[in-house]
Amino acid sequence: MADLSKLSLDVKSDTPLYRQLADSITRLISDGTIQSGDRLPPTRELAIQLGLNRTTVAAAYANLEEAGLIRGHVGRGSFVAGPLPRSIAMGSHDNWEAILPPPEVAISSAMPAASISFASSRPSADAFPLEQFRRMSKEVIDSPEAAEILQLGPTHGYQPLRRFLMAQAMDAGVARPGDDLIITNGCQQGLDLLARIFVSNKTPVAIEDPVYHGLVRVFARAGAELLPVPVDQDGLNVEALEETLERHRPRLLIVTPSFQNPTGATLTLERRKRVVSLARRYGVVLVENDIYTELRYRGQPLPALKELDESGNTILLRSYSKVLFPGLRVGWTIAPRAVVGRLADAKQISDLHSDQLSQAVLLRFTESGELQKHVEKTRVAGEKKLQAALGACKRCLPRGTSFTTPEGGLNLWIELPAPLTSDLLLTRVQERGVNFLPGRHFSAHGAHARGLRISFGGLAPDQIRRGIEILGECAKRELAFNEASSDHEAAAVLV
Amino acid sequence: MADLSKLSLDVKSDTPLYRQLADSITRLISDGTIQSGDRLPPTRELAIQLGLNRTTVAAAYANLEEAGLIRGHVGRGSFVAGPLPRSIAMGSHDNWEAILPPPEVAISSAMPAASISFASSRPSADAFPLEQFRRMSKEVIDSPEAAEILQLGPTHGYQPLRRFLMAQAMDAGVARPGDDLIITNGCQQGLDLLARIFVSNKTPVAIEDPVYHGLVRVFARAGAELLPVPVDQDGLNVEALEETLERHRPRLLIVTPSFQNPTGATLTLERRKRVVSLARRYGVVLVENDIYTELRYRGQPLPALKELDESGNTILLRSYSKVLFPGLRVGWTIAPRAVVGRLADAKQISDLHSDQLSQAVLLRFTESGELQKHVEKTRVAGEKKLQAALGACKRCLPRGTSFTTPEGGLNLWIELPAPLTSDLLLTRVQERGVNFLPGRHFSAHGAHARGLRISFGGLAPDQIRRGIEILGECAKRELAFNEASSDHEAAAVLV
Repeated sequence: MADLSKLSLDVKSDTPLYRQLADSITRLISDGTIQSGDRLPPTRELAIQLGLNRTTVAAAYANLEEAGLIRGHVGRGSFVAGPLPRSIAMGSHDNWEAILPPPEVAISSAMPAASISFASSRPSADAFPLEQFRRMSKEVIDSPEAAEILQLGPTHGYQPLRRFLMAQAMDAGVARPGDDLIITNGCQQGLDLLARIFVSNKTPVAIEDPVYHGLVRVFARAGAELLPVPVDQDGLNVEALEETLERHRPRLLIVTPSFQNPTGATLTLERRKRVVSLARRYGVVLVENDIYTELRYRGQPLPALKELDESGNTILLRSYSKVLFPGLRVGWTIAPRAVVGRLADAKQISDLHSDQLSQAVLLRFTESGELQKHVEKTRVAGEKKLQAALGACKRCLPRGTSFTTPEGGLNLWIELPAPLTSDLLLTRVQERGVNFLPGRHFSAHGAHARGLRISFGGLAPDQIRRGIEILGECAKRELAFNEASSDHEAAAVLV
Repeated sequence: MADLSKLSLDVKSDTPLYRQLADSITRLISDGTIQSGDRLPPTRELAIQLGLNRTTVAAAYANLEEAGLIRGHVGRGSFVAGPLPRSIAMGSHDNWEAILPPPEVAISSAMPAASISFASSRPSADAFPLEQFRRMSKEVIDSPEAAEILQLGPTHGYQPLRRFLMAQAMDAGVARPGDDLIITNGCQQGLDLLARIFVSNKTPVAIEDPVYHGLVRVFARAGAELLPVPVDQDGLNVEALEETLERHRPRLLIVTPSFQNPTGATLTLERRKRVVSLARRYGVVLVENDIYTELRYRGQPLPALKELDESGNTILLRSYSKVLFPGLRVGWTIAPRAVVGRLADAKQISDLHSDQLSQAVLLRFTESGELQKHVEKTRVAGEKKLQAALGACKRCLPRGTSFTTPEGGLNLWIELPAPLTSDLLLTRVQERGVNFLPGRHFSAHGAHARGLRISFGGLAPDQIRRGIEILGECAKRELAFNEASSDHEAAAVLV
């Protein structure tokens, strides 16, 4: 355990205490006093040693974690990550860590099991049309095509599914004659392939902020310079977007126009038009990550950016994962032919082609109309969930909290009042069996310490209400505790 | 059409004519006389214009294609690839080509359909146990696990399959207590993930030569500096390997010890031990690409490198694709826990996880013993195919040809006598409905102009015999023609 009890902090300084603490620990790491693998004291313990409020210590740790200097493991504590040795130990692999890239903070494994988990943006399991799945899978398996499905397939995807999706997209006006379509292992692979063909070292890429963590990871790993553009209740802020385009001239702009993850926000029609025209004016490659669009529970459907873009150059990503079985990894990308050709090159290198059995089953689901039936049922259930979530937020969250009011999708976003951080709130609600993902997971630069995502799509209305109630109770208690103890903190003796 | 009729060649030079021709065209490309997208004259036409043998022109074109300067499209001719503009046209995407990476030469789409295709290293379709597949798929679909299979799954793979494969590997001595296992979309993804975690710009990677083109593409794309180590009848040449390790200190060494693609060669036991000890001595990360090992038709099985490596550090890749259904994309990697952890990080970014339905079906195949039964049947059929291939090679190929004599797998390698190139032979045999992949596809640096791969695994013995007969006839005819016309070429007037 690293000894941090001798850290000196200055209560009179303008620099907040949590920042001072984070800076002091950073110095200890950089001068080698504490080293890679060292465990930091639990927040409660360090708070007592230093005479600080525990919120302050937790904020400092969150800050260090965002900076990549420490890694938190729920249940095991926080550890110094430390710089990686740049040279390779050629003589031996006894220490693989020396030649491997640093581990990612795997969100799923860091989250303890919870009875009410708002942590995963996924559809509800009990709503799955399992019987239809069984029937249709058997039809596929018994069909003469089964033999072909078991052979190596084309990189672009299972031909009958590809043709079907393309025809559907043409009818809907989201594909044009110059377009082509490639099937991917969910949209995650679509994003990954786009990163492979468009991003190299320091390629500027404009993304939403907050944004889906899987998207940040793809582009960060590919070496992009990420340019966050704020998202508000009406989606991407177009003034901020224009400024970013003008100043940084990004190569790519990635937008989730409908029921964005994590905010649930939807771009208004006016903003959609503006995003498309800005993209064209600045020659940025516009990527429309449109996986939630079918899940509208209220209000009027809006045209896709791809539909509004007369140039035909928007790249559209869609998927079955959010409306049907997420375990069957089938998404698709519609884009100008030249782009799809290069995506196929990259996919061939990645994994040759996607699994054909799942593609064939999903085609049958779509063609038979069962998918549409299921989507309609999901919308009815979704509206009840959304209502439960918004109602509970209004009723239970402490004053000063704000939250988005989505019209569909699986997620909404909460901003806690200062000084409460979502990391601290998470440790509290976990003790009561509730989980969520804190805001920092949705930032390219470790921001959103007060934000948190509520993924309500996988839960029943009662669970949603109960979970948000617990959230509200814990938040109120922490805020009250903080107010009571703030005098104490100011008076603490620091050595 | 680019006008190349005024190229000047020097018949008295020591530099071969094909090389002179290639160099002259390179100059025309680099000084802009002919440009990206320009079509080159057909080989026959240019040969007549320059008074050269067509073989010479074809060799020059092959050379330019290997260098990435031109691209051949069967049926459409060859085109100048040209350098990519480095800057991005910000104002418009009318020309996507300007901001996209250069297209890969997609082998599959460049090959016309053939009645006898030796072009794909895959198992025979008619041998597939389709009825068993139907039965077991239905069992999986009707099982209570079906609901779980349709949910988002763990990045490491479907747990029951992972546990089964790990237990099997422990029993067989190829996994050790410190190891872990991750399921990938076939071995192609295993290689791709390894490239992601170990390779950055100019990372030296030692590979076999000749070697599977999909492997070259993965590591070339990742930015590796590829170091080819020759393969002979007994597998990797260990003297050459030691020299490469000593001189270049590669970070990775990738070996296919059994029935290597494309040569069919198998590393002897003695060489296996030597490869492992060299890998340990030089601290290179040893990757064992072991996808054909089950397909031994003759001789004694040999231990895996992973089994021989007492340090436990070898990374082993295996797959179901070569023995069962290649359309179900399921492979796996066994490696020290730290390595598997990072592979899982990279996989989560790539596509979250592999399709679970296929994993569950393949588990049932394996557990039920049906896989083993199928492998045994495949071995009996494989021996007949191998016999047919080797017999026909002996009987039909022209004097001066050499070929490998594998003891299993799906491929063998032929070296044609000078001056015949495999590209020229391919155009000849394609006219008679036969296909194969010419040697240059199996080289990181465009070598093996006389080599070619015969993938016999997907064909019946009769087809194999007939195909190799045609190959032999065409080769003999070209050699005879060349001999007859060589006087003419020497006397040609060159301007």
